Amino acid sequence: MAPIIRVEQIADYVGQEVTLRGWVYNRTHKGKLVFLLIRDGYGFVQCVAFSKDVPAEVFEMAVHIPQESSVLVTGVVRADPRAPGVPGGYEVGITGLETVQAVAEDYPIALKEHGVDFLLDNRHLWIRTQSQWAILRIRATVIRAIRDWLDDHGFTNMDTPILTPAACEGTTTLFGTPYFDEGIAYLAQSGQLYNEANIFAFSRVYCFGPTFRAEKSKTRRHLTEFWMVEPEIAFCDLDELMEIEEQFISYIVQRVLKERGPELRVLGRDTSALERITPPFPRISYDEAAERLAQLAAEAEDPEQKALLAFEWGMDFGSPHETALTQQFDKPVFVYGYPTKVKAFYMEPWPGRPEVCKSVDLLAPEGYGEIIGGSERISSPEVLLEHIHRDKLPEEAFQWYIELRKFGSVPHSGFGLGLERTVTWICGIEHIREAIAFPRTIKRIYP
Amino acid sequence: MAPIIRVEQIADYVGQEVTLRGWVYNRTHKGKLVFLLIRDGYGFVQCVAFSKDVPAEVFEMAVHIPQESSVLVTGVVRADPRAPGVPGGYEVGITGLETVQAVAEDYPIALKEHGVDFLLDNRHLWIRTQSQWAILRIRATVIRAIRDWLDDHGFTNMDTPILTPAACEGTTTLFGTPYFDEGIAYLAQSGQLYNEANIFAFSRVYCFGPTFRAEKSKTRRHLTEFWMVEPEIAFCDLDELMEIEEQFISYIVQRVLKERGPELRVLGRDTSALERITPPFPRISYDEAAERLAQLAAEAEDPEQKALLAFEWGMDFGSPHETALTQQFDKPVFVYGYPTKVKAFYMEPWPGRPEVCKSVDLLAPEGYGEIIGGSERISSPEVLLEHIHRDKLPEEAFQWYIELRKFGSVPHSGFGLGLERTVTWICGIEHIREAIAFPRTIKRIYP
Repeated sequence: MAPIIRVEQIADYVGQEVTLRGWVYNRTHKGKLVFLLIRDGYGFVQCVAFSKDVPAEVFEMAVHIPQESSVLVTGVVRADPRAPGVPGGYEVGITGLETVQAVAEDYPIALKEHGVDFLLDNRHLWIRTQSQWAILRIRATVIRAIRDWLDDHGFTNMDTPILTPAACEGTTTLFGTPYFDEGIAYLAQSGQLYNEANIFAFSRVYCFGPTFRAEKSKTRRHLTEFWMVEPEIAFCDLDELMEIEEQFISYIVQRVLKERGPELRVLGRDTSALERITPPFPRISYDEAAERLAQLAAEAEDPEQKALLAFEWGMDFGSPHETALTQQFDKPVFVYGYPTKVKAFYMEPWPGRPEVCKSVDLLAPEGYGEIIGGSERISSPEVLLEHIHRDKLPEEAFQWYIELRKFGSVPHSGFGLGLERTVTWICGIEHIREAIAFPRTIKRIYP
Repeated sequence: MAPIIRVEQIADYVGQEVTLRGWVYNRTHKGKLVFLLIRDGYGFVQCVAFSKDVPAEVFEMAVHIPQESSVLVTGVVRADPRAPGVPGGYEVGITGLETVQAVAEDYPIALKEHGVDFLLDNRHLWIRTQSQWAILRIRATVIRAIRDWLDDHGFTNMDTPILTPAACEGTTTLFGTPYFDEGIAYLAQSGQLYNEANIFAFSRVYCFGPTFRAEKSKTRRHLTEFWMVEPEIAFCDLDELMEIEEQFISYIVQRVLKERGPELRVLGRDTSALERITPPFPRISYDEAAERLAQLAAEAEDPEQKALLAFEWGMDFGSPHETALTQQFDKPVFVYGYPTKVKAFYMEPWPGRPEVCKSVDLLAPEGYGEIIGGSERISSPEVLLEHIHRDKLPEEAFQWYIELRKFGSVPHSGFGLGLERTVTWICGIEHIREAIAFPRTIKRIYP
């Protein structure tokens, strides 16, 4: 019996008879030849039935087999540089064909353009399409790269809770659920505060799980449910944090380039833009970014563009600002030292400039914008308490968090990387909703 | 300057001067000697200050430094088989000591026995204790082993949604949250149905994320929020599923043995019970399990035990049944072919025995009980629809799930492994709440 192989292994089987288990992605019939493009979950390969080489019933089956039918295809692997597929360059000369299930109805997703609502309604089928398959394979590689880099650099994976009691920064963007006799539990927007407890036991930690924002944002950069990795590091200041981030991001991108070349080709991604992603990354202060934006606005001739770029010190960046800034660099750019009032209460004040905090965001190039937000955290219990009072947060709910600064406090820093934003950038796609298998947006919770 | 190292690297630095960054776990003063047990997140090591070897102010600092103060300790590494610590066998002769923060208040958790409620209220500090640190280090290794094995065996990591529309099997054990204009969204109890969509695009997939059960169970085996890994496999029947499971579980256990020996010693774990965990695992049918239980009940002399073991064909196993069964084996045991009525609607019926389904649970030895539930899934659209009607489930909500059986259906199987139950068993601990950093139970959502 021929060995059952995966399409991604096909280069190792040239000249041998193999069996593929998969689905009919496309079919072309030209006289005595039938071409079946078979996908098996690991790739796409052209399989050819030539009428004089196979029994008549096998040829007939190949001529008529409907799209998406499940099959076992047996045949001999040939190298052929013209053969389509992913990775491509190989075809299988069919010697046997067995149908597992012949599809009886019309498959809803033909290999043509469909409207996005239709595709999202059929997401359970749309993921079979080559481009969606490629994106989600890249996503899995990004996840593995994230975990491998952290695990290999002394980080301990700690899963922080999703169901949390206190609403740290107001409840308007939080999902809540009744929790037995304990009132309402909120779905966590971050594991950071818990990770700050964890570093005192493990030094370097990360959580990597789903995160929830009940925000009414309807942009191509927002999901209500997304995955975030949040590393937190003891004995680490803002400069070391930026070093860690640039090493981390570069590793992820280079690993995708190494392992997911065929998938990037499916997406038509310009890989030279990814090859440039190596340390160090440029670092500019918020002050400098504000000056650059002022200059861009001054130079803009289009009044609409001038208005979009309008910026004053103290504002947070909007999407047009991020886009304009990232277009000045061909690598991700760090912007550090944001105004205290646009950032969270736990960020360490800049020495001698209390209106500025030791925060740093990382903006992805090509207009993709923010993929990381991070900071050095306040390590003094007195300063932390002062900020909690300043922002009128409930001190009682933060008691355990304040205690971390009383029992062996150390300088520490951390960041959060949005998985889907990172995948969207690496894939070079338009909309974040394709970077997760079953996206959740304010209008969509099905399937 | 001495290199900064982690305690887990100490064996590589014998005879050299190094710096450790960490916290004072314990302190003993005997005349001219002070012993500091330092923990740095990666281990625990004894550091010794001898009055004549260090400046007077360093010795004084060592004599008085409070528990949990953060410090930089510099000194020369010596091998000494008697030295306590984790891994142990090394000590550091202090040459310099720098305090980052001297703790000013009494640390709440002294190194003595505390009540469990007190410890859980102080979970943010309790995780610093050696036993808790060891358990959570083992947990992180279990997670990595799970992911490495799956990633290396052709599984693609797919994150399934937490916020889901349909309540598949009733809403009584579900947490729900208002979701914009879309009604109530429920927190998923499983990613399985979505993974069944995913296998048709990726062949083998897994999800690994938090899972929620609003069950009023208050046992040592239940959490309301726990992590579960759920592999799903195309072209796989029940026998192949059991082969995959026994390879997978054995790999996890052997990897923990290899990488977490010192942590298992901290917990006093009998590692010989873990060394036995190699394939194959015994397989017994539900029918045979029922007979074994009947016999055990008949042989039991204690009337209370006899009553606890009482069992009739058709029942699901309770905790006493699982304990009694697992005590007959020194490896995990598969029990397959449960009655249809105690299992979920999507399980493939046993050929010729519609009252039995192609399900299989894996019970861990030493009385730990169920860690895996799995089955072959129904692949026929007609049979699936029949079961949905039989169980009076809303057909409309399952439309997409039924479609999977129409467009290229294949035999497929999958399972779910509870992370915390697995960690509890491997660590040999009593209660599941210690197998996660911040446990959630029906009475606890803080900190």
